[in-house]
Amino acid sequence: MSLLDRLRACTAHDSARLRPWRIGDTVAGWVAPPVADLLDRRPGPLRPEGRGWRLDERLDGPEARAAALEEITDRLIEAGLVRKRRDERYPMVSEWGAPLLATVDRGAAVALGIKSFGIHLNGVVEAADGPLLWVAKRAADRALAPGKLDNLVAGGQPAGLSLAENLVKECAEEAAIPAELARRAVPAGAITYMMDTAEGLRRDTLFVYDLALAPDFTPRNTDGEVESFARRPLAAVLEQLRDTEDFKFNVALVIIDLAIRRGIVGPEEPDYLALCRGLREPTDPPSHPRAG
Amino acid sequence: MSLLDRLRACTAHDSARLRPWRIGDTVAGWVAPPVADLLDRRPGPLRPEGRGWRLDERLDGPEARAAALEEITDRLIEAGLVRKRRDERYPMVSEWGAPLLATVDRGAAVALGIKSFGIHLNGVVEAADGPLLWVAKRAADRALAPGKLDNLVAGGQPAGLSLAENLVKECAEEAAIPAELARRAVPAGAITYMMDTAEGLRRDTLFVYDLALAPDFTPRNTDGEVESFARRPLAAVLEQLRDTEDFKFNVALVIIDLAIRRGIVGPEEPDYLALCRGLREPTDPPSHPRAG
Repeated sequence: MSLLDRLRACTAHDSARLRPWRIGDTVAGWVAPPVADLLDRRPGPLRPEGRGWRLDERLDGPEARAAALEEITDRLIEAGLVRKRRDERYPMVSEWGAPLLATVDRGAAVALGIKSFGIHLNGVVEAADGPLLWVAKRAADRALAPGKLDNLVAGGQPAGLSLAENLVKECAEEAAIPAELARRAVPAGAITYMMDTAEGLRRDTLFVYDLALAPDFTPRNTDGEVESFARRPLAAVLEQLRDTEDFKFNVALVIIDLAIRRGIVGPEEPDYLALCRGLREPTDPPSHPRAG
Repeated sequence: MSLLDRLRACTAHDSARLRPWRIGDTVAGWVAPPVADLLDRRPGPLRPEGRGWRLDERLDGPEARAAALEEITDRLIEAGLVRKRRDERYPMVSEWGAPLLATVDRGAAVALGIKSFGIHLNGVVEAADGPLLWVAKRAADRALAPGKLDNLVAGGQPAGLSLAENLVKECAEEAAIPAELARRAVPAGAITYMMDTAEGLRRDTLFVYDLALAPDFTPRNTDGEVESFARRPLAAVLEQLRDTEDFKFNVALVIIDLAIRRGIVGPEEPDYLALCRGLREPTDPPSHPRAG
């Protein structure tokens, strides 16, 4: 596989099969056929409109809308289209920084095709012959990507926390990184992608942070998400990423971005420009997808 | 102005008014009305086809095509649509790394709407309280952006040189950076944009390099392009970029990219995602632009 194949595996989607639902004039989500079929049969608070639906306009404000989306989440779970609640509230916004429209259970975010946000932290140790990267191995009992390799710290962005607060929380849970050390993490950009999955459309924005770690720092997982950690040269991690399926899909993008920023992947890479551009695909499907 | 305004100033274009010309099946360039009008009247080796033109297919290989494009360049100069030859050959490719289709005089690249490539080097001095950036002030006699602030080193990518060779050459010419130091520059990504100008469509890819410089390094211009150099905190450079028109248009993008990579601009910036994504707009207009 080439690095570009890793990127493509994470950005493959077909807008044509998606149908939009709105909150007011904002397209809040895009749903794929199984969920669309359910909504056609039992729209509930999602009123049919055009090719899609609009949330009942009498639902005024984030709390009333969240309650209505809980009702829809119940139906998605009953129908087997959402596996279970994750008991974490995701913010629903037209774009990061825009006013909160509603919240929704994390478990339903992909089925409802809303924009999701997360943080990924590269744990980097500077060594004489190049950077070393801490890599986590996800526990075998995870629902998503069990046993796959991951960033040192990564997590979804729940409603009600700032990115900085969430970073401190996830650093503590996933790697026992003390708050004062976590606060030294430096934001280094954002990666965005859309990806068709069995559950629906992932529309993800990953806020990337780099944290310089001392050679004697050793991470320790406290929440059961990680089975083990290893520290390896970034160049070797990148080769493993090319040659194996060992990494969680979206972690590939974060590591490719780091490798580009650090010059480990340079313009001699045949797909360099496609990689530089492809790490930041829009998370809004075209509003008028092709018929089909 | 916001940083996003700086980006928009550099990425504003209207595909609808452009018409394509091809080499074989490859769209080689996009021309705006004044050049299109000339080609409608005197197509020469550009044979009308559909909305645009195709270079005479009997012209086989880069050299024959380059000669035909020289003939067209003559007409563009006669008609006042190209100011003058720059006596530097630009490579003409469908994308970086693809086979050479032809070469064209740098002076005609924008009028003919071909993809152009360049290198920009951030000269960075690490200091205790954050990075310092070397900024060049362009000489007042430059045709492009006289008196504007620039990166320490920047240059177009001519045919026949590798990026690494060009970087060493430009480092010597623009800042008297010795070759062994220039070779330590680290590639850090690429910035791409399309921009309407009076001469035509700029379709630029800037390969970005960072070079760590010692506190006692002082640049010295040797080719007349730079009037003076100054070294200032990156955060202060960024504020000047926001508040003034002092910087050359595309240098703004390179500095915003550096500020994002170094965490000087972070997710608390209201336009963070728009900036992260907007630095890498495609340089291919949609193949079927709107009618108009």
